[in-house]
Amino acid sequence: MLELGPLEDELGLFTDLYQLTMCQAYQAAEMNQPAVFSLFFRKLPDHRNFLLACGQEEAARLATAIRFPRRQLDRLADLEVFRDEFLRWLEAFRFSGDIHALPEGTPVFPHEPLLEVRAPVAEAQLLESIVMNAVNTETLLASKAARITLAAAGRPVMDFGMRRMHGMDAALRGARAYRVAGISATSNVLAGLRHGLPVQGTMAHSFIQAHDDETQAFRLYARLYPGTTLLVDTYDTLAGVEKVIALVRDEGLEVGGIRLDSGDLGALAKESRRRLDAAGLERVKIVASGGLDEWKIAGLLADGAPIDGFGVGTDMGAVADAPSLDLAYKLTEYAGKPRLKNSPGKQLLPGAKQVWRFQDASGHYTHDELTRREEQRQATPLLLPAVTGGEPLHPTPNPDLARERAWEALEHMPPEMRRLEPMDAPYPVHTSSALSALRRAALAAIGTRHSRHN
Amino acid sequence: MLELGPLEDELGLFTDLYQLTMCQAYQAAEMNQPAVFSLFFRKLPDHRNFLLACGQEEAARLATAIRFPRRQLDRLADLEVFRDEFLRWLEAFRFSGDIHALPEGTPVFPHEPLLEVRAPVAEAQLLESIVMNAVNTETLLASKAARITLAAAGRPVMDFGMRRMHGMDAALRGARAYRVAGISATSNVLAGLRHGLPVQGTMAHSFIQAHDDETQAFRLYARLYPGTTLLVDTYDTLAGVEKVIALVRDEGLEVGGIRLDSGDLGALAKESRRRLDAAGLERVKIVASGGLDEWKIAGLLADGAPIDGFGVGTDMGAVADAPSLDLAYKLTEYAGKPRLKNSPGKQLLPGAKQVWRFQDASGHYTHDELTRREEQRQATPLLLPAVTGGEPLHPTPNPDLARERAWEALEHMPPEMRRLEPMDAPYPVHTSSALSALRRAALAAIGTRHSRHN
Repeated sequence: MLELGPLEDELGLFTDLYQLTMCQAYQAAEMNQPAVFSLFFRKLPDHRNFLLACGQEEAARLATAIRFPRRQLDRLADLEVFRDEFLRWLEAFRFSGDIHALPEGTPVFPHEPLLEVRAPVAEAQLLESIVMNAVNTETLLASKAARITLAAAGRPVMDFGMRRMHGMDAALRGARAYRVAGISATSNVLAGLRHGLPVQGTMAHSFIQAHDDETQAFRLYARLYPGTTLLVDTYDTLAGVEKVIALVRDEGLEVGGIRLDSGDLGALAKESRRRLDAAGLERVKIVASGGLDEWKIAGLLADGAPIDGFGVGTDMGAVADAPSLDLAYKLTEYAGKPRLKNSPGKQLLPGAKQVWRFQDASGHYTHDELTRREEQRQATPLLLPAVTGGEPLHPTPNPDLARERAWEALEHMPPEMRRLEPMDAPYPVHTSSALSALRRAALAAIGTRHSRHN
Repeated sequence: MLELGPLEDELGLFTDLYQLTMCQAYQAAEMNQPAVFSLFFRKLPDHRNFLLACGQEEAARLATAIRFPRRQLDRLADLEVFRDEFLRWLEAFRFSGDIHALPEGTPVFPHEPLLEVRAPVAEAQLLESIVMNAVNTETLLASKAARITLAAAGRPVMDFGMRRMHGMDAALRGARAYRVAGISATSNVLAGLRHGLPVQGTMAHSFIQAHDDETQAFRLYARLYPGTTLLVDTYDTLAGVEKVIALVRDEGLEVGGIRLDSGDLGALAKESRRRLDAAGLERVKIVASGGLDEWKIAGLLADGAPIDGFGVGTDMGAVADAPSLDLAYKLTEYAGKPRLKNSPGKQLLPGAKQVWRFQDASGHYTHDELTRREEQRQATPLLLPAVTGGEPLHPTPNPDLARERAWEALEHMPPEMRRLEPMDAPYPVHTSSALSALRRAALAAIGTRHSRHN
């Protein structure tokens, strides 16, 4: 059998070794009190105004699917680190705790938990690597794609990224995350079929090159796929456009669009539009691709380039400007006591929390407040149950629902948030006085313990 | 069943839609002559002196595993793009062609094919997306890791990246690619077990935090794992070091190392070393981690930081400085004729090629030469058969063999190549006169065809 990712029964092994050795230590010391872990980031990537939380549903699905069947325990035993007693604990393992998470598509800001896990400490610890991998991947990709959607200002954007994404899993999950972020369609067939996304594509240069004659290649394709988009830049872009015009005019072929993939896209789009319109082909659309990102798309449109849609690959797939997020999964409570690491200059917030999003009378979001979980506010609580007692609440996550949520939320955010440039002042996120007090108490406890032993 | 990547019978659907629509067009037009596609990159990422070719074995394995079973054809039929005749062609599909590839671990330079496919055009076209995804991912990760290995100058480096890598597949394949690049061990349990890599880990801050007393956490861990590495920076790094010293001295616990994960790693390493040595604990090693990349590692060592090993995660996992490669999979020959796209300012090389690596009398590499495949040179040919007649030649790729190849090759490259800074002059890659002549002929043919229709 080909191993194209973890097999289902290997999910528990998709973890950092230290998660398992720490769990064995907890078990050996009979430390099985409830713990709370918070997944959050400390700062936004440069130039970013928000991240779009994504991957929490996948994280919940993975967390609740972790098992350690006998075959896998035998492999673990080969590492000669684990005792039989712990392997038996793993054999019985099933996540039994609770996960609260932001609904996918929620715009999220520094220090706001994307997800909080409450479970016996070893169980919560065991989720760290797989949950971080899932949320990092999808949030990263969705957040970049949201900017590209914003830059395209209502024009459709196609995901062409699969060849440059990091592995097959990223390409499959990414297409879904892109959908949440408003991307119109994907070229990735399997991702489209699996997640119910529109699948689109045009043609490659190789197809033109394999023919001795560009017109012949266009004719074959347009006959087979009426309304298709023809790639015109293989040899000479404007000559390619003329060939398309001739085929439509002289042979009555139905062509939906042309794709420009190289050169000065703005100038070529303008001249192509002029020639198409002059031939009465106002209905033929212009799609641009080739090294595009949000800045280039915004620049083209600001310059009046008559482009009707974009194909974006590399920069959205690899997230060139922010290929990783500053995500952390931190213990914030154990055995009923708030817990903090001492991180000079870094704000850490103890305990289980809630994120409240406040709206003004006209429905616009004004600020968020981070509180202790049990506090109440007249606002929308963002952290909602995703897993209760080990059971996921949304077994079939729906990217279209998350997409509606995302764009509904972004529409009601301050307008500067939807610009590509960083906001003058970040969106306000306050901390409640009860949470601040708990933080001070937790820091004092660290100070006390530390000085006692120093 | 959980879908954690493509299922084996879905491999054929892991492709861009246009690969399938182009194949249907080739089939409709009865275009089934042999084609050659070359996979190469045009320029190195900024600051880089080489890439380390990796992923070709995985690409060959995937290419030869592609099938379209009935269940998947039914899903494709739902797209309402494909005719029965083409679906029958897919049902019978099996890659029947040849793949030549650089052995994994080969240092590679611009314009050198990492891989060339020769097969009936539709077959070769159908491999593009999956082959690019595999080679992009592993070459990207291996190339970054090679720089980190070089910076560590013989000290072991552990891969801590899985939580920040893009999906599970990237983390699994990446750990293997890192091994090729000389990384010593991975924290990723499944990757280690699957690829036979050393698996290592220490402990997390959460483990310390869950205890009311740091010493108690250290004691528990060191008793359970004699020789372990203790994380000392949760509250106060040097106080943590003192606690470790006390445990070893007063309780006779066996501690192999301490890990510094925050703060001024160089200064803390020096002071920790001083205190450990003063206590007679010269044998306790110092491991550093936390936001490290090749530049920071080189800086620490240049500054004399007494660090014995490094843990590297985010920057190696997401490849912060070059998260994508400029890889292209281009048609270079069809039906016996060389083929080129017209790319002003971009060098494209037609036909099937060979890469020759020349050594001087003392075994040092002096330059490479790109030739037509059938030319001969008194040098080492780098493109070797990987798949012949649809059969992969290396069904069990061995990362340790590739690692030996990589470091043997790098040792014999010009010494400046092993520096982090860009070389004054790039490693020389020449083009044979026969290949240049073929290129001129192919460009002239484009010019002719183009002007005929313009």
